[in-house]
Amino acid sequence: MDNHYIAGFVDGEGSFHVSFQKRQDLRFRWQIFSEFHICQNRASVKVLQTIQDVLQCGYIKENHAKNDKDKTYVYVVRNRQDLLSKIVPFFEKYPLHTAKRNDFEKFKVILNMMQNNDHLSEAGFIEIAKLAFSMNAMGKYRKVSIDKILTSLKSSETTR
Amino acid sequence: MDNHYIAGFVDGEGSFHVSFQKRQDLRFRWQIFSEFHICQNRASVKVLQTIQDVLQCGYIKENHAKNDKDKTYVYVVRNRQDLLSKIVPFFEKYPLHTAKRNDFEKFKVILNMMQNNDHLSEAGFIEIAKLAFSMNAMGKYRKVSIDKILTSLKSSETTR
Repeated sequence: MDNHYIAGFVDGEGSFHVSFQKRQDLRFRWQIFSEFHICQNRASVKVLQTIQDVLQCGYIKENHAKNDKDKTYVYVVRNRQDLLSKIVPFFEKYPLHTAKRNDFEKFKVILNMMQNNDHLSEAGFIEIAKLAFSMNAMGKYRKVSIDKILTSLKSSETTR
Repeated sequence: MDNHYIAGFVDGEGSFHVSFQKRQDLRFRWQIFSEFHICQNRASVKVLQTIQDVLQCGYIKENHAKNDKDKTYVYVVRNRQDLLSKIVPFFEKYPLHTAKRNDFEKFKVILNMMQNNDHLSEAGFIEIAKLAFSMNAMGKYRKVSIDKILTSLKSSETTR
């Protein structure tokens, strides 16, 4: 499998995503997860395995193991060091060509900011949240709104 | 843009499709259309233009020009000579790796059968219909069932 093939495939099927999960013990109440993933149905899981072999990181799992109707698999990379040292350099060498390239660029900025611990300051956290919510069609598929995240940020400031 | 990128992109976003449209004046009442297409939203239409330049055939149009909510574009190749002389050789040289490759192989068989005028015989028409309905997740998105097509085939036989 050619590396450019992987770039084209990811441009169609892959996703660079930054999510927020509630964590009361953290200063800003939300933990930030950065993730690269590709979904495929069972018939094409071999492609995910080949891509995993090439990128030498991440894991493959059933997408919704508890849902009998959803028989898709997902290749996931969540480890930040893998994202920074393997995923980002790969797509810099073998570039994306659709609007997803903008998401990749924002993803890179967020990874570097987190690597720099910028998310531990309020200004940095807000900047990351705004960048993250501007990704993937302005976050229209998200369950949590940016307002909810930024509001609980303020309440964490006033209660400390 | 690398040709392998195009193969990967098409493996995610492209479609090889054979459709049937009612035509009372034809012997078997249904006209067969073979088509290769790729859809993208407006932000990524440039990728379609580049692919069109590389493949040197087909055209780009609004996907549902009359639907204000659907702002997607589609690159379409319907001309059988272009499909046989440009599209098929391209994806033989730069192969697909997902289950879509099976659809491509069936698409090729159908194109060659039609080129050979096999669709003008009843046995050939039925074989093409069965092959076509076995493509793209067993035709689960189709509006017309294969039964409807094969039934009207029989009625055309009995009324002539």
